[in-house]
Amino acid sequence: MKKSIGPRTLIQPNPVLIIGSYDQNGQPNIMTVAWGGICCSKPPCAAISLRQATYTYGNIQYQKAFTINIPSAAFVKEADYVGIYSGKQENKFEFLGLTPVKSDVVNAPYVQEFAVALECEVLKVIEIGLHTQFIGEIKDIKADENILAENGLPDITKLQPFIYNSAGQDYYALGDFLGKAYTVGRKQ
Amino acid sequence: MKKSIGPRTLIQPNPVLIIGSYDQNGQPNIMTVAWGGICCSKPPCAAISLRQATYTYGNIQYQKAFTINIPSAAFVKEADYVGIYSGKQENKFEFLGLTPVKSDVVNAPYVQEFAVALECEVLKVIEIGLHTQFIGEIKDIKADENILAENGLPDITKLQPFIYNSAGQDYYALGDFLGKAYTVGRKQ
Repeated sequence: MKKSIGPRTLIQPNPVLIIGSYDQNGQPNIMTVAWGGICCSKPPCAAISLRQATYTYGNIQYQKAFTINIPSAAFVKEADYVGIYSGKQENKFEFLGLTPVKSDVVNAPYVQEFAVALECEVLKVIEIGLHTQFIGEIKDIKADENILAENGLPDITKLQPFIYNSAGQDYYALGDFLGKAYTVGRKQ
Repeated sequence: MKKSIGPRTLIQPNPVLIIGSYDQNGQPNIMTVAWGGICCSKPPCAAISLRQATYTYGNIQYQKAFTINIPSAAFVKEADYVGIYSGKQENKFEFLGLTPVKSDVVNAPYVQEFAVALECEVLKVIEIGLHTQFIGEIKDIKADENILAENGLPDITKLQPFIYNSAGQDYYALGDFLGKAYTVGRKQ
């Protein structure tokens, strides 16, 4: 039996994405978001949603650029920290001992210690309600060489990205391989 | 060392979301998308991206409503099937033996056999490029009672949603619990 549980922000799973940006003084900041993902293939674009109250919101409105960094599960504490505290009060890179690297294609920093970074230029800004969605065109992606698969793309089992579960407010690791896409469901 | 891998549609992980809609004749259809997620908390909204060429695109433009269904890992074959074949050629509900249930709050069907369904009314349509993003206001969520946790929300370990990995074109299960959000990263 299905039960009505009301209108809520519930999709499972959510990614854990660390957004890198510069403020008006060029100070790097990072913030964790779970509401984001790819939204177009040509041009390749990713969307992230932010509240106006965040430091990152002002940074992106000013710089028109951001990075989306994908942390490995080994960085779950750092990712959680980045989601709790505000760049208005402190330099989160410094507190965590993380290294900001200026992107060579957009005016935003990525996190050296996280294995994958998407470098995005703002294409559209969509006012929805409490959250504003920034759609960024992905100008390039930087990835650690040691996590790349034979096809030249990040091997998810080496990257070990993790999952945010908004319903339980907790984090989960990547699990077992289930099957190949466009294959397991094909008509026999 | 980080290497440039070019602009690509790469975020890991992606959810596996089954979009339910009615065509102009009231025929139910389902389609799999990996590009979607929550995008606003007030009003609660979810975004999905579709190519104009899909049957679902025309359905949603016509009906201004859709559902987002979250399948459990037990349905990996069905989810893959729904992503391969088009509703233009066949009734996918019938082929798979799945049951369409008309939402009581929006004009779209959800999938009885999948444990969670978000019922969405189109709030905005954003043309990005090859993909169009539909932002839907979540009017209600229906969930199977047997997967609910004590807090009344879906228990992710009972739902067992799975992950699409676009870089390897494969599916992965949910893994181990890593920690509580807003807790593991808190300053001591």
